[in-house]
Amino acid sequence: MKKSITLSQGSGGKENSELIKKIFYKAFQNEILLKSEDAAIIESKKLAMTTDSFTVSPIFFNGGDIGKLSICGTCNDLAMMGAKPKYLTCGIIIEEGFAVEDLKKIVESMRKELIKSGAIIVGGDTKVVPKGSVDKIFINTTGIGEVLQENISSNSISQDDVILVNRDIGTHGATIFSAREGIGLESNLQSDCANLFPIVETLIKGGIKIKAMRDATRGGLAAVLNELAIQSNICIEIEEDKLPVSEEVRGICEILGFEATALANEGTFVLAVNENDGQKALDILKKFNENAQIIGRATQNQPKKVIMYSSWGTKRVLEMPTGELLPRIC
Amino acid sequence: MKKSITLSQGSGGKENSELIKKIFYKAFQNEILLKSEDAAIIESKKLAMTTDSFTVSPIFFNGGDIGKLSICGTCNDLAMMGAKPKYLTCGIIIEEGFAVEDLKKIVESMRKELIKSGAIIVGGDTKVVPKGSVDKIFINTTGIGEVLQENISSNSISQDDVILVNRDIGTHGATIFSAREGIGLESNLQSDCANLFPIVETLIKGGIKIKAMRDATRGGLAAVLNELAIQSNICIEIEEDKLPVSEEVRGICEILGFEATALANEGTFVLAVNENDGQKALDILKKFNENAQIIGRATQNQPKKVIMYSSWGTKRVLEMPTGELLPRIC
Repeated sequence: MKKSITLSQGSGGKENSELIKKIFYKAFQNEILLKSEDAAIIESKKLAMTTDSFTVSPIFFNGGDIGKLSICGTCNDLAMMGAKPKYLTCGIIIEEGFAVEDLKKIVESMRKELIKSGAIIVGGDTKVVPKGSVDKIFINTTGIGEVLQENISSNSISQDDVILVNRDIGTHGATIFSAREGIGLESNLQSDCANLFPIVETLIKGGIKIKAMRDATRGGLAAVLNELAIQSNICIEIEEDKLPVSEEVRGICEILGFEATALANEGTFVLAVNENDGQKALDILKKFNENAQIIGRATQNQPKKVIMYSSWGTKRVLEMPTGELLPRIC
Repeated sequence: MKKSITLSQGSGGKENSELIKKIFYKAFQNEILLKSEDAAIIESKKLAMTTDSFTVSPIFFNGGDIGKLSICGTCNDLAMMGAKPKYLTCGIIIEEGFAVEDLKKIVESMRKELIKSGAIIVGGDTKVVPKGSVDKIFINTTGIGEVLQENISSNSISQDDVILVNRDIGTHGATIFSAREGIGLESNLQSDCANLFPIVETLIKGGIKIKAMRDATRGGLAAVLNELAIQSNICIEIEEDKLPVSEEVRGICEILGFEATALANEGTFVLAVNENDGQKALDILKKFNENAQIIGRATQNQPKKVIMYSSWGTKRVLEMPTGELLPRIC
């Protein structure tokens, strides 16, 4: 490891995993932490607990703002473990001189999103730091949820399981990039930022036995598929032309040389189910977004790898993203 | 309220309370949040939950560092509700270029302090932001504890209850100030930063019926006593010469015109017990620190006020601190 922390160590990719393993897991090791899930399962499997810090820039963007993001992000991590969001805490660090009007807008976004999630804020902490000590506002939310379906885990995917995504990918990353770089691509592009619990609840109520779920935030779909493949010791095979990518995102990727699979999302998740449940799960996902899709399946071909097949019959390994990606994406 | 956020709105004093009430409580109102305790009591009074963000500057100081502080601070908020710290999450925001060696030192402090507290880290989030977006490192910790004694509350102090502090006050604030300003007062001054759960556990095991506890962090003893007086709708009367203040802290206060009662602490708490338990509680506190003291009692004289009597027989209202105090103290 280098002597100084680099941006790539916070990007959700390979270097980020290394930093976490070598410094944090090593020091804090315990059975719960080491499971590398979106949320920890505690109290006899009854509760899930997770934390996330939000530093997105710009703080207001098409489709959301840092407030909405801070509620969706943490609620989604709970939902990904089959848990219903219940209690949230909120730690806010504000730069001296920040506009009170903007703070009110952010808090109002949080309030609206809390109603959708069904969770309540039970505690908070507000720090104001001198100008220059933080860029505008950072928000941490930590949440506890009630586990509705047990044993959903990133290590439980097995051969022939079907892999789905709930919508088209990459819109959050593309939106933030466009906003930050002032790209005047007049488009309908907006962040996918949304609460995923309603979808998860419908899947569970619909009798779907969920094997694994993970929202594709930092590092995008590529990072999540690789994490799942590694943790389940399985090969995930994907059909490239099944990946739902909107025209707008495709356009930005082509112009700028990005991969849509490495772009961040804030309301997009990967779902793994038994092959018998595949079609039923897809039907449910499509009720929420018609771009939902079965994108591939789990095999024994090359365990711990993600293989992507193109429509021309070629195949390549979809690698865990490396490098800086886009800092302050969430 | 002004149009821009000011430092005083983050200092733990009057303006801080106003900001929280007018913006956050208003938006997030629910029965649990509105109780204004150090930690929320959830899940049929079985669990306590609390969050805190740490932005202290300098990050290494005499008696601790931001890592130790981040574990003690959150564990103490749980302990103040009679809860044993169990699960913590840790959200870290690091500035690009931060020294890996320093990160390791901080994480090692956290590890050591976790062992003392008996809690484990069950989840975390690490963000790296570009140089200039944050000053070095900010840490959020959120904790869940198991409630060992129910109904400890800042609104349950009643007439004749005895008010105690567990040690001499103001050392954290004085230490940070000295370090930051480079005051070369060669002294043994060091932050009181410590895990309070062992003391609380001994009080509970000793059969003390605790009415209220609160650790005197931002805003110091003055802020905490005022909060307790307001929330319990009681008058708290304090004898000034019973307040334990070390020679070092007294010296710094005299030179710089501070009040020791407004200086921050990180291992100092106020305890309210029934008058019958006063001496026994003091005996227990003295086992941990000989400077523990009974400093006053609750009366009906001037509800919601804190009155301080000097050794010369004069009395004055000890106000809730206002203004900027010391930013980035914790």
